Amino acid sequence: MLHTQTAHPTGAGSSSTPLLDMAAWMQSHLLRVEQALSDWVGQGAPAGLGEAMRYAVLDGGKRLRPLLVLAAREAVASADSPDALLRSHCDEAALRAACAVELIHAYSLVHDDMPCMDNDVLRRGKPTVHVQFGQAPALLAGDALQALAFELLAPEGSAIPEGIQARLCSLLARAAGAQGMAGGQAIDLASVGVALNEDQLRQMHRLKTGALLQGSVLMGAACSQANTAARAALADYGAALGLAFQVVDDILDVTADAATLGKTAGKDAAQDKPTYVSLLGLERAQTHAQALHQQALAALAASGLPDTRALAALADKVVHRAY
Amino acid sequence: MLHTQTAHPTGAGSSSTPLLDMAAWMQSHLLRVEQALSDWVGQGAPAGLGEAMRYAVLDGGKRLRPLLVLAAREAVASADSPDALLRSHCDEAALRAACAVELIHAYSLVHDDMPCMDNDVLRRGKPTVHVQFGQAPALLAGDALQALAFELLAPEGSAIPEGIQARLCSLLARAAGAQGMAGGQAIDLASVGVALNEDQLRQMHRLKTGALLQGSVLMGAACSQANTAARAALADYGAALGLAFQVVDDILDVTADAATLGKTAGKDAAQDKPTYVSLLGLERAQTHAQALHQQALAALAASGLPDTRALAALADKVVHRAY
Repeated sequence: MLHTQTAHPTGAGSSSTPLLDMAAWMQSHLLRVEQALSDWVGQGAPAGLGEAMRYAVLDGGKRLRPLLVLAAREAVASADSPDALLRSHCDEAALRAACAVELIHAYSLVHDDMPCMDNDVLRRGKPTVHVQFGQAPALLAGDALQALAFELLAPEGSAIPEGIQARLCSLLARAAGAQGMAGGQAIDLASVGVALNEDQLRQMHRLKTGALLQGSVLMGAACSQANTAARAALADYGAALGLAFQVVDDILDVTADAATLGKTAGKDAAQDKPTYVSLLGLERAQTHAQALHQQALAALAASGLPDTRALAALADKVVHRAY
Repeated sequence: MLHTQTAHPTGAGSSSTPLLDMAAWMQSHLLRVEQALSDWVGQGAPAGLGEAMRYAVLDGGKRLRPLLVLAAREAVASADSPDALLRSHCDEAALRAACAVELIHAYSLVHDDMPCMDNDVLRRGKPTVHVQFGQAPALLAGDALQALAFELLAPEGSAIPEGIQARLCSLLARAAGAQGMAGGQAIDLASVGVALNEDQLRQMHRLKTGALLQGSVLMGAACSQANTAARAALADYGAALGLAFQVVDDILDVTADAATLGKTAGKDAAQDKPTYVSLLGLERAQTHAQALHQQALAALAASGLPDTRALAALADKVVHRAY
């Protein structure tokens, strides 16, 4: 992990890299992601299933993971061959990866909210999927969303380089599975009412939320024909960002209200789940989030990539978000 | 769909192709599958999760889908390049595909058995996963098994041709997802107590069980560098076999007992689910199974492949099985 404090790599004050208009970047990229998700989710599915899948995915969510994929793709694009057609295939791979990772996130929320798990009734300000459609359709919709994620990565007859398709499947499967997100959820499940130390808490979150956030960065970086040396630095960035996200989540769970969060607040404390706030106290948790933020930015500076402004701006957003 | 009645393509009576010792073939191939599953399932997972995953997969199951993958791989292997190393990579891909498709099957059983779905307590003669471990661990184990299936197909740093890895991910995702198995389960869920006609029943089963069985055949056929023209014929074989499997399943649901089936018998009728037997009557359902069997064998004969004996023998097993 990198700890060096560096100049902020968003390009502010640099003569060679102009300031990024992050609001415009967000707007244009979110539009592409929303359109692609709407085009791809639930199409061709039996009616009830397709409806539940779309409900789970569309009209909600900050799309942090897809934006990380696209920002990482842009950071490595400079290493690509100048062949415009090939570059466009890599861009398509990134858009597919962006949607795929969001589908994994969305399915995990659907299953997490079910009565046998967190039994939550409110998500993104709407009734959760099993409240709206019933438990069995929610279970199936989650399962189908996971399959669709992989289907998006390896489209039949596609011109996306096969090595990129295979690498994306590999990265997503590992981020989602027993040594990633699902494994973290299992540890979480087993740790209710258990006193974890900071190492154990970090390991749980590294898997539960960190793996998919880091995976998003790695997937974006994999959408290039060049096998860039920068990938290790981007992995560091993703690891720090993933942990920062969770620390901030724990902070917001005690400082924000349900209306702002769009979900039930204070649940972790109520369920006696270990959090960074319960372990470190609020103030030290906030300091920890800032340190992780700096680690993420330092990793970008160390990557040697010419333009990591969008990745830096996303790290800022993760740490400074209000919900 | 092919309807021509042909000579039995297992090679019996042919001067060029010797009889296949199917018992020995089954034994050696099952051994490889069981060993590989044991090597790959639950390794590196948090303890409780890994245990539930292994419980769901190991020590049970007829492994029909893995055997179909391996038999289809062998049928197309003759078209491969003579390069022994490349062939061994293709063989490894087939073993991975065999395990992956079994993991999808296993996860679907875990989720299907849950209280919000079929609420079944007995599977392969053992308590179902949620009875043994609880509902939340069962849900997570199923989710992690699906992710692991795709992880197996695209191993990091593997020498398996990337085109084969991508194609396997594509085939498995489509067979498992909303236009495959999960879609069929959604139709099944929505059709309890509903009078389906034969076309609707066929469409439900084509997705619910047929897609993964046909997918197994297609995945095995994809484990070759040669893009064989025989794939269309193998798709016909897989479609007929998949439907035959379900017709026989419906027959066994009324003719076999729980001890033989290893699961609760008569459930479909008790739950007022449409079946081939309820639609056609027992005798016509049996005739239909025979006709599908002949279609499967005819497709093999039409494939032009030099050795489809194992595939033919598996079709025989599907139709003549007692459980």
